Formats: sequence, C-alpha cells, structure tokens
Amino acid sequence: MKNAVRATYRLAVEPSQLDARVEALRYEQTVDLPPAAVTDPFVRDEILPSVAGVAEDPRGGFRVTVAYPELATALDPAQLLNVLFGNSSMHADVELVAVTLTPALESRLGGPRLGAAGLRALAGGAGRALTCTALKPMGLSSKDLAALCARFARGGIDVIKDDHGLADHATAPFEERVTLCQAAVEEEVARSGRRILYAPNLVGTPEAIRTRLEFARHRGVRAVLVAPMLVGLPLLAELASASEGIAILAHPAFAGAQRIAFDALLGTLFRAYGADASIFPHAGGRFGLDLDTCRRLVGELRAPRDGLLATLPVPAGGMSVERVRELVAFYGTDCMLLVGGSLYVAGADLDRRVREFVEAVADASEAQGRGLP
Amino acid sequence: MKNAVRATYRLAVEPSQLDARVEALRYEQTVDLPPAAVTDPFVRDEILPSVAGVAEDPRGGFRVTVAYPELATALDPAQLLNVLFGNSSMHADVELVAVTLTPALESRLGGPRLGAAGLRALAGGAGRALTCTALKPMGLSSKDLAALCARFARGGIDVIKDDHGLADHATAPFEERVTLCQAAVEEEVARSGRRILYAPNLVGTPEAIRTRLEFARHRGVRAVLVAPMLVGLPLLAELASASEGIAILAHPAFAGAQRIAFDALLGTLFRAYGADASIFPHAGGRFGLDLDTCRRLVGELRAPRDGLLATLPVPAGGMSVERVRELVAFYGTDCMLLVGGSLYVAGADLDRRVREFVEAVADASEAQGRGLP
Repeated sequence: MKNAVRATYRLAVEPSQLDARVEALRYEQTVDLPPAAVTDPFVRDEILPSVAGVAEDPRGGFRVTVAYPELATALDPAQLLNVLFGNSSMHADVELVAVTLTPALESRLGGPRLGAAGLRALAGGAGRALTCTALKPMGLSSKDLAALCARFARGGIDVIKDDHGLADHATAPFEERVTLCQAAVEEEVARSGRRILYAPNLVGTPEAIRTRLEFARHRGVRAVLVAPMLVGLPLLAELASASEGIAILAHPAFAGAQRIAFDALLGTLFRAYGADASIFPHAGGRFGLDLDTCRRLVGELRAPRDGLLATLPVPAGGMSVERVRELVAFYGTDCMLLVGGSLYVAGADLDRRVREFVEAVADASEAQGRGLP
Repeated sequence: MKNAVRATYRLAVEPSQLDARVEALRYEQTVDLPPAAVTDPFVRDEILPSVAGVAEDPRGGFRVTVAYPELATALDPAQLLNVLFGNSSMHADVELVAVTLTPALESRLGGPRLGAAGLRALAGGAGRALTCTALKPMGLSSKDLAALCARFARGGIDVIKDDHGLADHATAPFEERVTLCQAAVEEEVARSGRRILYAPNLVGTPEAIRTRLEFARHRGVRAVLVAPMLVGLPLLAELASASEGIAILAHPAFAGAQRIAFDALLGTLFRAYGADASIFPHAGGRFGLDLDTCRRLVGELRAPRDGLLATLPVPAGGMSVERVRELVAFYGTDCMLLVGGSLYVAGADLDRRVREFVEAVADASEAQGRGLP
C-alpha cells in the first residue's frame, strides 16, 4: 500500500484467537462496523487497512503491523491518534508498540521547528551534553524560585525549566514567576556572556496556554516546557506551529495512562508533533524502562527523516550526578541531561553540587569526544 | 484535610513494599523531589498530600487513597490531571481507580452545561430511553452520509451522531457534511414535528475545533461529539464553557482506560469536565467492562452533586437491538442507547431495523415504567 501509516500492535492473545482479533482490529480502527455492514467498494478498497506483517512477540503473544491508508487520517493530528489507537486502546490485551508515519503526515505535523540543533544554538554548550534542571517544589514563592533559578544559572546549568507541576499557583503565579525567573537568567547572561535558557511550564486549557506562551515570548523567553498528554497531543502540533523561535521541551507526565510503548509515544509521536526536546525516564531511575527501550526511543528522536529535524533526547526521571558519565557514554554528547532531586538533596550545599554536575558533564563529554569509556 | 482532592490508586505491590511506595507516590505527584530535599515548612504542610486510607484490594495489592491539597491543582483543568496521575501514570503497577473533586474544582470545571435533562429537552423522548446511532463508515461522501442521516431521522432515532472517525476527510469534508446532514435532520423535524439532533464530530487541534464548533452553531447544530482523550481533556472544559446551548457528547476513543478505571475517567472526570452525555462500552460488548464497572460509572454520572448537572449515560460498544430490553432494565429510561453496527448489518433492510430499534426502546421503556422486567 502506498502512503500507508504503519502501526505495530502487540496482541497478547492465544494463537487460536489471532486471526479473528487482527480482523477485528482492522475494522475497529477505521470503519467501526461489522464486516457484513461494509459493502461500499471504495470503503473496502481505500479505507480498510491491510495487514503488513504478523510475528510472534518474544514477550508472548504477537506483533501485528497494520498499514492504514493515509486517507483515513484526514491528515489531522487528532484523527491520526484515533486511527492509531482510538477504540483499540480500550482493549486490555492490545498495546501500540511502533508507528511509521507518511511524508505527508510528517509534513502536516511539522516535527520540531528548532530541533536538537536549534535548541543547542539557543542554549550553547557546543561539543558536550547540555545540562538541565528544574525549579521546584510547588509551594515556593516566585521570588524563591527566581532565587533558585539565579543560583542554577550562576552554577553553569544550560537550561533551567519549571517543574512540570508548576501551574498558575497562587503561591507563584505564572506571570510573576516568568518575569522574575527570566530576569534572573538574563542577569546572569549579561554578567557571564553565557547562553542560558529559562523554560516556563505551559499547563492549562488551550486558550490559557496560548495566552501564557505570548506572555512568555514578550518577556524574552526562548524555551517552554509542555506535557503533551496532559494538555492534549494535538495542541503540541498547534504550539509548534505558533512557536516562532521558542524551543519546546516535551514532558512525559500522564503519558503512562495510555498503553502505548514509551519509544513510540515519547519518541516517534512527540517528535512528529513538534517537540524540540523530549524528556523521558532513563533506565534504572524511578520508572521501569529498560535500556533497549531507551535505545529505541533515542533512535526515534534522532533517525534521519526527510523534512523532520531531530529532537534532542533528555534522559531524566531520577538521574544523579554520579550517573553522568554512564549517561554520556550511552547517549553521546548530543543530548541534555536533566538532574533535579540529586541536586536538591544537597540542601545548603546546592551551589557546590550544581558545579559538580556541570563539571561532570563537561568531563564526560570530553572523555566521550576522545573515545574514552 | 479540608478542600482535599481524593484519589484512590491500586498499587499492585507486595506488602513489604507498600509503605515505601505510598511515600514515593505522595512525593512524585506533588513536589517531585526526594523527601530529604523538601525542607520548606509551607511546602511540607500545605502541598504534600496525606494518606486518607489504605486497604487490601480484592484483586490483589492495595487500594490507597491520597488526599491532595486543592492548592496543588491551582484549580487548573490540566494541572489537576497532573496531580492525579502525572508521573505515576508511568509506573506500570499503579492504577488510578477513583477520584473525588472539591466543590471549588467542580465549580471551576463547571460540569455539564445542559446535562442529562438539558439534552433530553433538546432531543425529546420524554419518559423513555433515548435512541442514538452513528453515521459511518468513513469513506462515504457527504451526500451518502446525509442520505443515511435522513433515513435514521425518518426512522425515529433521536440523536444521530457522526462516527468518531469522521474528521475533515476529503471524501466528506466537515463543512459540507455538517451542512447536508443538519439540513436532512431539519427537513424531518419540519415534516414530523419531532425533535431530532444531529451531532457532528469535532476532532482536530484546538483551533480547528473552535472554528468547526462555530460553523456548526451557525448551521443550527445543537449537539456535538468529541473524544476528550484524543483532543485533550482540558479542551473539553474549554468547549463546555463555549458551548452555549450546544450539548456535548463525549466519546471514549483513546481513553485507553486500562490504568485509569473506566468509571473514574468516563464517569467522574468526563462529567466534571463538562460532558452532557458520556458514551462508554457496556458489559458484554466488544470491550472488557463488567457490570459492576458499568454500575459505578453510571453512578458517577448521575450522583447528585451540588452545582453539577447529571450527565446522560450512553451505553454502547457493540450493543444490539436484541439487547435493548436488558439495557433499559439495567440503566432505566434516563439514558440514551447507542446502536450502530447492529443496524448497519441489515443492509438493504436498514429502515426496518431502525424501526425495530426505536420500537424496542419505546416498549422496553414502557415496560420499565410499569415495573416489568
């Protein structure tokens, strides 16, 4: 099939059920009718997907690749999700494990507008992994968060993002917080000449997010954080269109509520929908990813694709300063390391700990450049 | 704790892990920091949630109820999801099974603007269950879909909705389809004097959806279909605010509600976010819900709540004309029965099958009114 969107599902079913379940999936995800009710020849030929492959899954069950006609998606960012995993998401034994889009869909979604290289151009740090940390916890005042922001900036962090849990809280209202944190970063930029980014968190309804994006832009902000599954993945595509030079960092919160493999969702889809950087839990942290999943995920973010910039990988989720060398060895230097709690536990010694983080990344990147382990 | 949002999780963990996992959950979902890094007294007292209950779960593991300070949600529709299930959604052994909001959150979200009663006022059908079917499959032309719409309207269906897979397809563009289908319904309304609703499907980015809602309103449309998980649940809250007399039918596509219990997501949350009717898979159809879940779900949609209208339950997902009596016995008459495939398989006999459906609902509702089984 030409112009087919390919989706691979894991079906945890017995061999005797397989044919019937694959047939049901083809109908469920497109015409949503029993086969006997699909009589129109155009619908049968041009809408119903074909099965592009069936294989046993090493974890048990089967991996089934379905080729959907691009026409079924209407090239719509929300309808695409419906075709990939609308009704079938409600079947407990079906998991969406991989997605291959078409050139027209990738062009419609647009992918990252700045991408890994554009984010690097904004953040500096040529030749080494970038450093990133988060302002938290919620409950602190804007002034306290801005003071932390200033310390991280002075300490040499490249990208200082809001925690994804900072909304328009009464304790640190969005506009006040953004104004103070951005000013803190700009002061350090002026003092040191380094490039540093502050990335406020955009969370809310689409209208609130649009208003906040414009506010941040007018304050000079050049990067934002957004959790696409909280706000709606189609909004990520809309934000990418409207970003105009502002880098979008995607956060995985609420992503686990769907049974979609992490590499397909945080890799393939977040990139296609326009994330310039994708934050994901690295193996051995607080979340249960394994190294193979991380390798596939980062492959999805970086794989050369016509017309689609690369997305910067941001391994996170309980990483520590002590793991920097291992992370750089695994991801190379073209990534950004996000460390939060491992800095905050230093308490009064925060500034020293930040320096250790920044130096560890520089050292590990240099070792990596020289081909050392 | 006053003004607490209560979330109940199922933790599929061993007894020896329970305390540590509950403690981790408290921190993960709010401050996102290790306990040692949370030193601010205000944050400890006013942001960290308390544990309101722990019990063994009959399915194994434990049910843990966490009381989150309302402050943590910032009364924000997206941040609320983050507090309920942001990072923890990525833990495969954690499931969100129940949610209790606060009055202020319910007031901010607003709940259904028309509700079950308002939808009934638009659709007619006093004293009996409402009938609903879907226009499909994708791939048909607008003219063909409008012809189907006219047949369903003449046959006596109350609410004729687009299939949730109808987007702005080249084969049946949104504006053309809405114009023709609404005209078909209005013609039958003028002829028969019955009230009938056509509900077009709103799918796309938030901006596209807003434009389409306004187009539909100007064509006289009084109900729309939206799949909140496809477009983003916060957008449902925004649509409800902007609906102004248009009823919102919520569709469960992409709800993937395996790790959020169906009753919590399609019941509690869809209602709070503003669905006037919530479509969900009934037991014994194509999806794996049991009757207890359906009972809890419908309880969430109907339970009296100060300032929150009731949402009309719409059992669906492979229901047949033959099951109408059973459905009305289970849900009573204050529901809408959505039957699609079971009508379409009649092929050339569609009109007769529609009459059977409409009559079965009238008969079952009357029997129910007389207290018959």
